[in-house]
Amino acid sequence: MQNQKFSFELITQNDKARLGKISTPKGVIDTPAFMPVGTQGTVKGIFPDDILKTGTQIILGNTYHLLLRPGIDILKKFNGLHKFMNWNKPILTDSGGYQIMSLSNFNKIDKDIGAVFKSHIDGKKIILSPEKSIQVQKSINSDIIMVLDECPKLTNDKKILSRAIDVSKHWAERCKIEFGHDNSKALFGIVQGGLFKDLREESIKNLVNIGFDGYAMGGLAVGESQSEMFKILSEATNFLPKSKPRYLMGVGTPSDILGAVYYGIDMFDCVLPTRSGRTGLAFTWQGKINLKNSKYQKDTLPLDESCQLKGLNQYSKGYLNHLIKSNEMMASMLISLHNINFYQQFMSEIRKNIRSGTFTTFYKKYIDYFN
Amino acid sequence: MQNQKFSFELITQNDKARLGKISTPKGVIDTPAFMPVGTQGTVKGIFPDDILKTGTQIILGNTYHLLLRPGIDILKKFNGLHKFMNWNKPILTDSGGYQIMSLSNFNKIDKDIGAVFKSHIDGKKIILSPEKSIQVQKSINSDIIMVLDECPKLTNDKKILSRAIDVSKHWAERCKIEFGHDNSKALFGIVQGGLFKDLREESIKNLVNIGFDGYAMGGLAVGESQSEMFKILSEATNFLPKSKPRYLMGVGTPSDILGAVYYGIDMFDCVLPTRSGRTGLAFTWQGKINLKNSKYQKDTLPLDESCQLKGLNQYSKGYLNHLIKSNEMMASMLISLHNINFYQQFMSEIRKNIRSGTFTTFYKKYIDYFN
Repeated sequence: MQNQKFSFELITQNDKARLGKISTPKGVIDTPAFMPVGTQGTVKGIFPDDILKTGTQIILGNTYHLLLRPGIDILKKFNGLHKFMNWNKPILTDSGGYQIMSLSNFNKIDKDIGAVFKSHIDGKKIILSPEKSIQVQKSINSDIIMVLDECPKLTNDKKILSRAIDVSKHWAERCKIEFGHDNSKALFGIVQGGLFKDLREESIKNLVNIGFDGYAMGGLAVGESQSEMFKILSEATNFLPKSKPRYLMGVGTPSDILGAVYYGIDMFDCVLPTRSGRTGLAFTWQGKINLKNSKYQKDTLPLDESCQLKGLNQYSKGYLNHLIKSNEMMASMLISLHNINFYQQFMSEIRKNIRSGTFTTFYKKYIDYFN
Repeated sequence: MQNQKFSFELITQNDKARLGKISTPKGVIDTPAFMPVGTQGTVKGIFPDDILKTGTQIILGNTYHLLLRPGIDILKKFNGLHKFMNWNKPILTDSGGYQIMSLSNFNKIDKDIGAVFKSHIDGKKIILSPEKSIQVQKSINSDIIMVLDECPKLTNDKKILSRAIDVSKHWAERCKIEFGHDNSKALFGIVQGGLFKDLREESIKNLVNIGFDGYAMGGLAVGESQSEMFKILSEATNFLPKSKPRYLMGVGTPSDILGAVYYGIDMFDCVLPTRSGRTGLAFTWQGKINLKNSKYQKDTLPLDESCQLKGLNQYSKGYLNHLIKSNEMMASMLISLHNINFYQQFMSEIRKNIRSGTFTTFYKKYIDYFN
């Protein structure tokens, strides 16, 4: 019988690196975990049953996109996103804050009202209040719900970052109230504060005072260097409660993930494996491979000879090169599936190494491997 | 043990409609058969293992496209198209004639030399002689090879059509010589003659004199009406030998196929199910469905509730409508797979009905159904 409550168990640690397990009514998530991104109700180019075969235990949906299309009425009609897109395992949804900052044509943050923006699809004015964000995520029937936060663009301006922490704290309180009591789902807070240790500490204290089921690091992977990101993670994770899962939003390359696990992060999401799949870039145990390169034209070897998933080892690099040049959908389909599968293999190796106490060796071997 | 020789067995007939079986070293093809089109070494948007699950026993590759990209050298390096694209069942290749007429920027037909044209990719001048066409198809390692023919655009000009028959006869002889003796493969002749019974008869006599393993009707589905096509098929099939498979090139809708089977055709290929898949048009037992239409937005039912293939019955019309509007690849992937599966179900019903002697009833029920 599956656990009917959301819970997190910290199994073991190697220094700061954590092995854990999240239980939800829709399934277990072994951490450190990677969540493929299904922005508009589909992980681009991968059938749900094939995603499952990669070992993926949870995917991410985007509240901003799903609110605009198909919209709440249709999501409610289908009893949420799981049934709509034929994915029966856990789903985490972001709150929409990041997309409002990065995608919408116009946006204004009003502490009392919420985020006011124009849809990038039809220009319609939309108000996303903290309460509305939670309501939309409940319509999606998301298993892990994120609070609405203000996510400033990369900046060193402490005033802007402080104001964002203040707004985010206020909104987090309102989200918590709107979320109410539902222990089948989880509500995560989002830490802001840019690259400043003191601001991150302040933001974490605010959120821990309110009390959440997990804590996300927001406002990273927005243009800072990898070493800047690792530095603030190494500092900020010290302030996070050990008993709750920690999620680094929008990250990243295999190296980014490895470093963040080293500093104590449990969960990740990123479009990189699928977006790279669509541009011909493959991640492998031999490093990154740009399959567009003509040197692969006559290469009869597959990306990974040992990979049995959907017969992926039957497709040569030469064939993938041909498909990319011919603008064939099959290129995206095969390389995206390979990349998600590689990411999940990589996460599995991370977990194995933490379990066996060898994570630091693994970390040192691969930390510069995929750059 | 599989048959190591190409052969055709005519099992039974309902009036002119034929049930048959083609044996090849790579597998059996039950006829009437539909061949999905894999123009550039991939059936657009469908994994080979999923194509197999639709009951597809043979696919088509395009000599013109494969000659231009990846080119003969690479096809030889990979020992042909089967291994290159991971499809281990039979492949039929067209000769390139039709694409030279319809796609290339410039073309000239020279009876003695062959077809002279400029690549639609890089403008390079290429000469495709009858001998070269066979050589390319052998590099592809095609199981059913087509002769190079001159395929005129839709015309009522008997002079043009007669000249094409004359050129095609000459080229067919050269193709037969170049093909040589290889009973593991088949060489099919291509009948021309537009909508004229006497010209079709002349063209067939020319080809039967040379002697081929099968006969294709070319120069149809080029703009004539369905009734014009059915009329010339009903006349021309009388001149074709009963002991050889008959292939109607580039056809068509389910109704087109049904009518052609009624007049004695055994094999078909068409881009329609996959091309329609990419534009949101689905073929079902309830008729054609344009999934772009907003009336499907809240439709919670699948295209076919009984379809278990890859869980296709778990995807609602509402979800497909959302994917199309969102320009998601998954729309093409799901609808193309559904359409190929429907086409193969349709062919299977045609075969069942011929076997049980009820084909005429089936024909009358569905002949106007998909228009």
